[in-house]
Amino acid sequence: MSESTTPQRIGILTSGGDAPGMNAAIRAIVLAADHYDLEVIAFRHGFEGLLEQNYLQLTPNHVQHILQYSGTIIKSARCPRFKEVASAQQAARHLAELNIGALIVIGGDGSFRGAHHLSQHWDGQVIGVPGTIDNDVYGTDSTVGYSTAVAIAMDALDKIRDTADAMDRVFIVEVMGRNAGFIGLKSAMAAGAERMILPELQRDKPLTIEAIVKHIKRVEAVRGQGSYVMVLSEHQWPGGAVALSEQLEAEHGMPCRPCLLGHIQRGGPPTATDRVLASELGVYAVELIREGARNVMTAMRAGALTTVTMEETWSKKNPLPENLLRIQHEIFNPVKKSRQPRG
Amino acid sequence: MSESTTPQRIGILTSGGDAPGMNAAIRAIVLAADHYDLEVIAFRHGFEGLLEQNYLQLTPNHVQHILQYSGTIIKSARCPRFKEVASAQQAARHLAELNIGALIVIGGDGSFRGAHHLSQHWDGQVIGVPGTIDNDVYGTDSTVGYSTAVAIAMDALDKIRDTADAMDRVFIVEVMGRNAGFIGLKSAMAAGAERMILPELQRDKPLTIEAIVKHIKRVEAVRGQGSYVMVLSEHQWPGGAVALSEQLEAEHGMPCRPCLLGHIQRGGPPTATDRVLASELGVYAVELIREGARNVMTAMRAGALTTVTMEETWSKKNPLPENLLRIQHEIFNPVKKSRQPRG
Amino acid sequence: MSESTTPQRIGILTSGGDAPGMNAAIRAIVLAADHYDLEVIAFRHGFEGLLEQNYLQLTPNHVQHILQYSGTIIKSARCPRFKEVASAQQAARHLAELNIGALIVIGGDGSFRGAHHLSQHWDGQVIGVPGTIDNDVYGTDSTVGYSTAVAIAMDALDKIRDTADAMDRVFIVEVMGRNAGFIGLKSAMAAGAERMILPELQRDKPLTIEAIVKHIKRVEAVRGQGSYVMVLSEHQWPGGAVALSEQLEAEHGMPCRPCLLGHIQRGGPPTATDRVLASELGVYAVELIREGARNVMTAMRAGALTTVTMEETWSKKNPLPENLLRIQHEIFNPVKKSRQPRG
Amino acid sequence: MSESTTPQRIGILTSGGDAPGMNAAIRAIVLAADHYDLEVIAFRHGFEGLLEQNYLQLTPNHVQHILQYSGTIIKSARCPRFKEVASAQQAARHLAELNIGALIVIGGDGSFRGAHHLSQHWDGQVIGVPGTIDNDVYGTDSTVGYSTAVAIAMDALDKIRDTADAMDRVFIVEVMGRNAGFIGLKSAMAAGAERMILPELQRDKPLTIEAIVKHIKRVEAVRGQGSYVMVLSEHQWPGGAVALSEQLEAEHGMPCRPCLLGHIQRGGPPTATDRVLASELGVYAVELIREGARNVMTAMRAGALTTVTMEETWSKKNPLPENLLRIQHEIFNPVKKSRQPRG
Repeated sequence: MSESTTPQRIGILTSGGDAPGMNAAIRAIVLAADHYDLEVIAFRHGFEGLLEQNYLQLTPNHVQHILQYSGTIIKSARCPRFKEVASAQQAARHLAELNIGALIVIGGDGSFRGAHHLSQHWDGQVIGVPGTIDNDVYGTDSTVGYSTAVAIAMDALDKIRDTADAMDRVFIVEVMGRNAGFIGLKSAMAAGAERMILPELQRDKPLTIEAIVKHIKRVEAVRGQGSYVMVLSEHQWPGGAVALSEQLEAEHGMPCRPCLLGHIQRGGPPTATDRVLASELGVYAVELIREGARNVMTAMRAGALTTVTMEETWSKKNPLPENLLRIQHEIFNPVKKSRQPRG
Repeated sequence: MSESTTPQRIGILTSGGDAPGMNAAIRAIVLAADHYDLEVIAFRHGFEGLLEQNYLQLTPNHVQHILQYSGTIIKSARCPRFKEVASAQQAARHLAELNIGALIVIGGDGSFRGAHHLSQHWDGQVIGVPGTIDNDVYGTDSTVGYSTAVAIAMDALDKIRDTADAMDRVFIVEVMGRNAGFIGLKSAMAAGAERMILPELQRDKPLTIEAIVKHIKRVEAVRGQGSYVMVLSEHQWPGGAVALSEQLEAEHGMPCRPCLLGHIQRGGPPTATDRVLASELGVYAVELIREGARNVMTAMRAGALTTVTMEETWSKKNPLPENLLRIQHEIFNPVKKSRQPRG
Repeated sequence: MSESTTPQRIGILTSGGDAPGMNAAIRAIVLAADHYDLEVIAFRHGFEGLLEQNYLQLTPNHVQHILQYSGTIIKSARCPRFKEVASAQQAARHLAELNIGALIVIGGDGSFRGAHHLSQHWDGQVIGVPGTIDNDVYGTDSTVGYSTAVAIAMDALDKIRDTADAMDRVFIVEVMGRNAGFIGLKSAMAAGAERMILPELQRDKPLTIEAIVKHIKRVEAVRGQGSYVMVLSEHQWPGGAVALSEQLEAEHGMPCRPCLLGHIQRGGPPTATDRVLASELGVYAVELIREGARNVMTAMRAGALTTVTMEETWSKKNPLPENLLRIQHEIFNPVKKSRQPRG
Repeated sequence: MSESTTPQRIGILTSGGDAPGMNAAIRAIVLAADHYDLEVIAFRHGFEGLLEQNYLQLTPNHVQHILQYSGTIIKSARCPRFKEVASAQQAARHLAELNIGALIVIGGDGSFRGAHHLSQHWDGQVIGVPGTIDNDVYGTDSTVGYSTAVAIAMDALDKIRDTADAMDRVFIVEVMGRNAGFIGLKSAMAAGAERMILPELQRDKPLTIEAIVKHIKRVEAVRGQGSYVMVLSEHQWPGGAVALSEQLEAEHGMPCRPCLLGHIQRGGPPTATDRVLASELGVYAVELIREGARNVMTAMRAGALTTVTMEETWSKKNPLPENLLRIQHEIFNPVKKSRQPRG
């Protein structure tokens, strides 16, 4: 596609839950656009800004040194009403009025549904950049924000280990990822947790409280007294970590303490991994626009930049890495299968 | 007291909830004892180790480079049965058998009750070193562990601010300190929280959900949209941060998310403040033993080393710093009294 | 002084080397001023801004959530020409034109000389807030920034210990503080360094390379192989840590590696200690203005807010804490005096 | 190869410069060995331990919760004399005496030369695990330790940015990687450095001081005043960061400050990336032994586990990622080619 037809103005927005590294992606897009002499219009509060015509132009000076901060300087939000045809049509009008030829949407699968919906009512180019801590977007090995969320969960688990070892206690740390166990699995392995409860595992065969108690006792039997740290993905136990620890203490006489990390996993300085990934994907998004791509998400797969169609991002599912699951669940399991009594 | 009568062997133990810096105190005691040619016997799992005769001798080689880690290398535990006279008598026997003339107890007010109880059945010297994150021990401006707990709570609040700003949301972070608001007050001021709910404040006039909602709305009115972060001390709201945020969202349509830091506040590398405080108090404890002191707690008050009688540590109450309370509650309150509508 | 005569406008500036917590002080001043219905005019780049009339008005919205970042949003700079009478007179004129009745200077002793110089040519109130990582300002137990610098130096020393232990090596970490050993002493104690070279110690009797080598060998003799970490204050060895480590390796066959922390000690999130200290001193500065104080520096001494005359801040010297020096140098010295061979 | 011939005892050692994550690799190997009912003999201080017969048996209890610490619990060292045939033969004898059938060497290319040398005099299986912060081992996308070194360099650069912005100053941060610019490139991009000086770039056309000065001035011209942060790989400028900053200040009147990170880049808690990579490679090494593999290094390439022959690890060169180099050097360069005046 000849550059002559490249849009001279591109729009960007961050949508859905914010993710560490979104600012690095915004910066990369603005710097790449400047490099290719394109203008960047940023819409505030996600698709809301597109409907409310709440926007500003971003130049390199706006994005100097924002990449070390989490959050998003153009704010993010969810926008339920964008599902309506009228909204997509209105957004298309506003984009046309602003003479914007391409829109980059930074967010998760929900945001990409919105972007896809828009693309059906607007003839501009729509490009996605995966930004969510849950890593539950199909087509990319990592989403922007995932690495930082894992780092924060791991840091919390390390801290818990110190006190757990001092008191020989059981602890449950609830992490994010209601539909995907990526944060849970990776932080559990990184921190050497004794047990993890993940959506993918719960779907197959949900753990009973008895099974949990049995495992705790076996680990204690193998090691002698010691600490036991469990990673629990949100929404995988009724009442979460608080309820589960109360159950263990009240019903089974096991002193247990909960932690609920919540949105802490979305803050602090993004990891180098997230900053560099966001930078590469952001630049790539701009270069894809110049090449005439439309309705695709930028992705990093097997170490290489690639694209995936917008529909795939939510219609297909990212599986948990088989080998990590096997290692953490079997090989690193303090209770060896062979040693486990029958029943 | 002439040095000739200085005991040649001192015992130490860490008791109650562990606190960051306990290892630094252990190290300081062992190095000071070595300096003065005293032996150190460490009892494991607090007073339990004293009753179970579970102990080891500690030399400088045991404590090299432990001061950068939280927890306690000699483990800690609660020991309800130590309240019994028989236990104190048994402990006294064991100490005599081991030819130990002085015992250093590192812990909080509960541990000092135990230490005091022991002192009534044993003629050795009992010295306390304040180690608890809650800072709720009378007579010292800071306890070992307090500074680190505040640092961790502040770090969590900083992370929450990033995402709160990106989404213009309300967040509640539950911190430790069921009887004392020190962690809550200092972390709230350090992180610029909009609101704090502390035991000391709740005692006077408990906040209603309406008052909370009103304040949130006023802050939004003053600032225009924005983030709102609340620090909640544990046990100050039925159901804690989880219940309060559900209430705000369900009953008042205010999207709100909770975090429950729990024991994360007890781990990670201790702050320099805690390491240095623990070092000074630990050395001082050994020097007090050489001076013949008995049944006192080492303390740092107004920047100077001092002692306080064991009884005072739990019978008197550490008040929250008036000026910090005034500043955070009035001067830094986003809603100026003068601007507040009547009623 | 009756409030009626309280100036309605106060100026602020940050001068000299920046220090973590300066933003927290700025925020506190702006919020306190707002609380008392005063206006705040901030001059950029220190005294330069006063001469160049480079300023802006600060309101609470400008300072929301800046307290978690180091640096200073109004920039800092050194301003040699401010020593001249003409400069002070010009500054006085500009302050009068802006109808500013009081000026708060946040900085170190150099900045306070400037502030004092100004006070001799201007009839407004001049108040200082101690902001420097070196803690070398007389009259306050801590300056804003000192705690954070120590925390960063300690963190670096902790990291060095990991690799030093793995390789049984000698390391030298150069920290800031050319005239005062506060950062060196406190970080050395907090990290359990084997040796420290501080200005105060070097003045009395400078260490020879032979004395350093001898100590390293004795520590190795006492402990058997192991790591050895030295803290070196800047400007205390010709060529600094780089030269000293080359000397040790080349002349004495001791593999040794240097680190030069430099300005890293001035960045990152300020510690809670610095944020709270800056907040209290900032508010206090505004309240002192309302009370009619002039030409004093706000200080925290023995845990209480107080003031010290501007002249004292640089004419008197802050001594190193005797007890910390004794503990780190004698009690924690791996080589016991008693064990040391003569000569 | 049938499992019947799997060696029942494997040896491990860590060699050369230590790297964060080595402990995680040791733990993974011990847990995997236990899982497959193999014994693990660990040699201390790298190949030295093999020659000195300095070893211990490692069981799961030895490696509980070591994965959160940098360094290596079995110590590392360089061993020049291992180059000699006699040494390899002696090592082979000791391995035979201990009835060890396979040896896992964790280290960098130098260590793999040693491992290869051994394999020519010993009929056991030799397997390598890449552990070095420099990422300069051919065949794997990342070595264990690389991610942590980048994280620490980035954190230092973030801190420098705070103070650099406050003072509008030039700073030079010297990072590790004398032969490979991986740490320099990735940390520079992650922290948004204005300039980087890397071995790979210096080889093609070394920068002159004039070129550096010109770039600094152009950036200032484009942005107006502001901070300028340069990342310098070690050994790429005579005298390093200290000399270069003195040159800039003395010869070109540009106030500039240096930092020399040194071994700080090897300490602190390893990143989740390094812990997980080390865990996967460690387990894989044990499973390769069971499959009869010999004289290969475990590697992670394009997200998949694979092997590379020992010789390749040092005979071939890992190139810097082209796209990152292009982005950081051109697209993120504050001075646009198009804007640059001729000459």
